[in-house]
Amino acid sequence: MTSRTARRRVLRVTVPSGGGDEPAAEARADLLAVEEPLEIRVGGQPLAVTMRTPGHDIDLAAGFLATEGVIGSAAGVSQIRMCDANVADVTLAPGTPLPAERLRRNFITTSACGVCGKESIDAIRVRARYDVSADQVRVSPAVLAGLPDRLRAAQRVFSSTGGLHAAGIFTAGGSLLALREDVGRHNAVDKVVGWALREGRLPLAGCVLLVSGRASFELTQKALMAGMPILAAVSAPSSLAAELAEESGLTLVGFLRGTSMNVYTGTQRLDVAGLTGLEPERRASGRAG
Amino acid sequence: MTSRTARRRVLRVTVPSGGGDEPAAEARADLLAVEEPLEIRVGGQPLAVTMRTPGHDIDLAAGFLATEGVIGSAAGVSQIRMCDANVADVTLAPGTPLPAERLRRNFITTSACGVCGKESIDAIRVRARYDVSADQVRVSPAVLAGLPDRLRAAQRVFSSTGGLHAAGIFTAGGSLLALREDVGRHNAVDKVVGWALREGRLPLAGCVLLVSGRASFELTQKALMAGMPILAAVSAPSSLAAELAEESGLTLVGFLRGTSMNVYTGTQRLDVAGLTGLEPERRASGRAG
Repeated sequence: MTSRTARRRVLRVTVPSGGGDEPAAEARADLLAVEEPLEIRVGGQPLAVTMRTPGHDIDLAAGFLATEGVIGSAAGVSQIRMCDANVADVTLAPGTPLPAERLRRNFITTSACGVCGKESIDAIRVRARYDVSADQVRVSPAVLAGLPDRLRAAQRVFSSTGGLHAAGIFTAGGSLLALREDVGRHNAVDKVVGWALREGRLPLAGCVLLVSGRASFELTQKALMAGMPILAAVSAPSSLAAELAEESGLTLVGFLRGTSMNVYTGTQRLDVAGLTGLEPERRASGRAG
Repeated sequence: MTSRTARRRVLRVTVPSGGGDEPAAEARADLLAVEEPLEIRVGGQPLAVTMRTPGHDIDLAAGFLATEGVIGSAAGVSQIRMCDANVADVTLAPGTPLPAERLRRNFITTSACGVCGKESIDAIRVRARYDVSADQVRVSPAVLAGLPDRLRAAQRVFSSTGGLHAAGIFTAGGSLLALREDVGRHNAVDKVVGWALREGRLPLAGCVLLVSGRASFELTQKALMAGMPILAAVSAPSSLAAELAEESGLTLVGFLRGTSMNVYTGTQRLDVAGLTGLEPERRASGRAG
């Protein structure tokens, strides 16, 4: 069992608020989130290196391959084994094509005519195995509002280090299916997706992905690649996350704090009476670029 | 001038705290941080794609090449031009070697015998052009404690979107030299480093790099690649960030909030009387792995 935290001696320095006096300093112990590289290999060939918090590394490798579009279910993999504390080697099942070239994080395609968000979104939509737009699930705002507390209650590490992101998969009724933590938020999501893949639960129809921080383009695409119709974030989404969600029929919720939330796209999945006329219009102003 | 924020219509949903009543919903406008891919090319060849907030893209390209070790000063570059809103093309100066292969973010080396944090640290130390360990600068805790407020005061966007990370370079006296914001914290740092490179200010001896979030391994290596002896973060550092800082002689400050801070390494640069005996010991317990 690898530890997710490391103890260090630290000098705690406090400045007198009134000024004048000398700063006070005392040595104390502090817990830090562990960060180590994980190399993911396919058939012995290095594919990617990610800086992650050790633990659930098999889930991480499986989820990485799923959200990058290499595999769509547990049937795509023969074996995943750790051949070192920081190296996971994946043996694909016969018939699963090898990744053609080294994947880059974000798997953004480039083209001779330039790169834009629209092209990135198109590339994602082509690669996604699941269409979440038809997912008829509805979720109550009260249930959504309660998810961050449930996530935090289930986190054993966060409060002691302050340095770990969390990702949780919930049912529409608010039951926690899986929780994973990592120093990298994309890794936390890959770990819960990898758990689902290994449990034979992909696509995660009707489920909510909750992330403890912000919703980037990358996290939104991971939710889509796992077939989840709702992504909820405690903090802000980015512009491209909202655009990808809109074009893919994903419900994107941000600033999920206390008793309120912002619903950016897919409001039809929110159980709110009298929603007619309140549907957010498509982007009110053009995107800069 | 590209915009760093995009306006979207959003449905604001509030759950009655007492329960029972229907959730309230109202449509309103919201500002999101813009996220778009930037492709960085060298001599017309794609080198990397990063998801960034548009603005200061020339700084970003220059800083990326500096923190990845491709160039060490403005003399290494002949020209950087935007050949598209999302494509920066860098022409290296005669005599500057082309990057041998596509760089991967974090520029972690892999080897047949596995990957570990120690190997990553060794790889960084070999590539670093500057030795910060000999930097004799000292900084007052009161000055450090005041930096986050100065950073926030200088941020024009953060408060309106809640979605942008900031990085600032300060003198040891607390003067702000440069501030950059981005949806990606590594980009914010690359942007300030790129500014410094273009201004002929590398290495940034005697300077403090302040980041608005956490201090990862990657951000620590960027501080080192730019020759900065002090890295201060508003939130927690990771274990590998502290190890790299310790082995490189960098002063690492975390949880810089209000009137206090945690000093993880390099305490000799803190202007605190009677520090003798309070120096944090080397890592109190072994790293898991």
